[in-house]
Amino acid sequence: MTPGPGAPAAFGVDVGGTKMLGVAVGRDGHVLAQARVATPHGATDPDRRTGAEVGAEVAAAVADLVDTLRSAVGDTAGPVPADLPTDLPPRLPVGLGVPGMLDARGILCFAPNLKGAQGADIRALVAERLPGVDVGVANDANCAALAELRQGALRGVDEGLVVTLGTGIGGGVVIGGTVRTGAHGFAGEVGHITVDPTGPLCPCGKRGCWERYASGAGLGRLAREAAAAGRLHHVVAMAGGEPEAVRGEHVTSAAHAGEPGALAVMEDLGWWVALGLANLTALLDPGCIVLGGGLGAAGEMLLAPARRAYAELLEGAAVRPQVPVVAAVLGEQAGAVGAAIAAAEGGLW
Amino acid sequence: MTPGPGAPAAFGVDVGGTKMLGVAVGRDGHVLAQARVATPHGATDPDRRTGAEVGAEVAAAVADLVDTLRSAVGDTAGPVPADLPTDLPPRLPVGLGVPGMLDARGILCFAPNLKGAQGADIRALVAERLPGVDVGVANDANCAALAELRQGALRGVDEGLVVTLGTGIGGGVVIGGTVRTGAHGFAGEVGHITVDPTGPLCPCGKRGCWERYASGAGLGRLAREAAAAGRLHHVVAMAGGEPEAVRGEHVTSAAHAGEPGALAVMEDLGWWVALGLANLTALLDPGCIVLGGGLGAAGEMLLAPARRAYAELLEGAAVRPQVPVVAAVLGEQAGAVGAAIAAAEGGLW
Repeated sequence: MTPGPGAPAAFGVDVGGTKMLGVAVGRDGHVLAQARVATPHGATDPDRRTGAEVGAEVAAAVADLVDTLRSAVGDTAGPVPADLPTDLPPRLPVGLGVPGMLDARGILCFAPNLKGAQGADIRALVAERLPGVDVGVANDANCAALAELRQGALRGVDEGLVVTLGTGIGGGVVIGGTVRTGAHGFAGEVGHITVDPTGPLCPCGKRGCWERYASGAGLGRLAREAAAAGRLHHVVAMAGGEPEAVRGEHVTSAAHAGEPGALAVMEDLGWWVALGLANLTALLDPGCIVLGGGLGAAGEMLLAPARRAYAELLEGAAVRPQVPVVAAVLGEQAGAVGAAIAAAEGGLW
Repeated sequence: MTPGPGAPAAFGVDVGGTKMLGVAVGRDGHVLAQARVATPHGATDPDRRTGAEVGAEVAAAVADLVDTLRSAVGDTAGPVPADLPTDLPPRLPVGLGVPGMLDARGILCFAPNLKGAQGADIRALVAERLPGVDVGVANDANCAALAELRQGALRGVDEGLVVTLGTGIGGGVVIGGTVRTGAHGFAGEVGHITVDPTGPLCPCGKRGCWERYASGAGLGRLAREAAAAGRLHHVVAMAGGEPEAVRGEHVTSAAHAGEPGALAVMEDLGWWVALGLANLTALLDPGCIVLGGGLGAAGEMLLAPARRAYAELLEGAAVRPQVPVVAAVLGEQAGAVGAAIAAAEGGLW
């Protein structure tokens, strides 16, 4: 938890499958404080409880995280005195970013990566715990896109895309300078664009979704295939000697160390990333593409091969302007910062 | 050529690979007159001439078509007399819809289905032939989307998609009630979304583009596969006895007649159409999808199986609102009407 200077404007919490990251942001959108907790058990691995029960536990953890941030930045518990020159509400608003599809009522109606809380009215559950506070909820990747648009790599960009490469793949679509959420709030589900209808089964129920290939999970699969084919001796040794035990993080650290087999796997991963980016470009013709999420942090090791393949995979590549593919500026904070900005702006929900 | 009542506002020409369709539209966007000519030879099959030479021939044909329409609706050759209560320019504006990617200068920079004219500055070439006339040029599917938005199935829809199923597949993206053309004017190239990276080669140079499966060309391929497997005896007979001679139109007419083998091929085609629509929906979450183009005219025979498969292929299908998949209202005139509307509005370019 790192308090910083400035007047706080809103809190944002990025509810991930394994951890929840909370931030307090100032009126200019900069982070004043940060805190994190583990996501309650049961959110990702459904047990016998209902979505509402698990959702209530998630909401309690969110409320605790907000209390921690509130103490850090000095948000008052009561109404703001009338003589303070401020238009802030009595309690600062709270925005939540969640990994899944939210329906018009704010119900988390489909969330392969937060299955336990599926069906929960997360917004209402959090609002119950935080009386007098405006609470909003939005898709995490849409929050990340808003954060990059206001504070990061998409500042000043009218037509852009944010793609978050994590366990799965999320997306945020910026058109006409605005994060677009579609007719029902479900836009940006880029990870579930089918790139091979006979491909591996996805937790969403379909086959060959882009996130089976170009995410952290995809990297693990590519790595185990390379290991089984005998092309990753060093990485297999790092993983304890079993090809099946190889994980994405073994590959990224071996690639950082310059191991050729691992670099070749990153090259493959870059190709799959590029394939999906070319698909998105065919449809939307963005002026800039931002890669974020955990895998985005691999930086040039992934960006360089992805850019090379992207340049080849674009329709009419030879005649169209090059589209910059850049790393997200806000890193792992993007979702939380975007949720806070959305709360401050009263937007995205 | 069918003259109709009302004051003309603009002319539109849809430049197709085989024919050019021109319309005059009134101030309310309704069609007052229509005319068509064959697209000059060499536009689709490149010969030794340059894009500019072929483009000049296309431009001459466009100008002739506009002259025909002009006579039909009584557009004056000279300036409009000052005492006429009208804000129309001396000569009505002309809009062109072309099947390809236009760069910021209006150059047809990539056009797999109008290869001969690639590189031509179609707008300037037409403007040379029509002195004093405002000439604009836009992608044909974007024109079709504008026509459906103003006059057709997307009236009143803020978030929608128009997909034109012809020899290839074109697309128009409506977001926030506006046809969006992307950062460089290339948006909506939905036919070139890769749905199988190991699939058949596409004229665009990539493999497994959606339009290899779900277009007129895709229908022909599905039909020849079914014929070769012995599942289309009637259709093969219609085609003269050779499975390799089977074309899409043999299948659609046999399906209209209720032939079970042909209906099964339409069912397959519907599945491929749906796969791509599900991809577009994952990214954009439209409130309505409009199917147009030559194949769109197959109507319920294609729409019904496409809707069934679409309902299954959507991510979170069970929890999200059903998205209507409907036939285009403006049929084969959509591109020309949209080009005319764009010319009248001064938009899309």
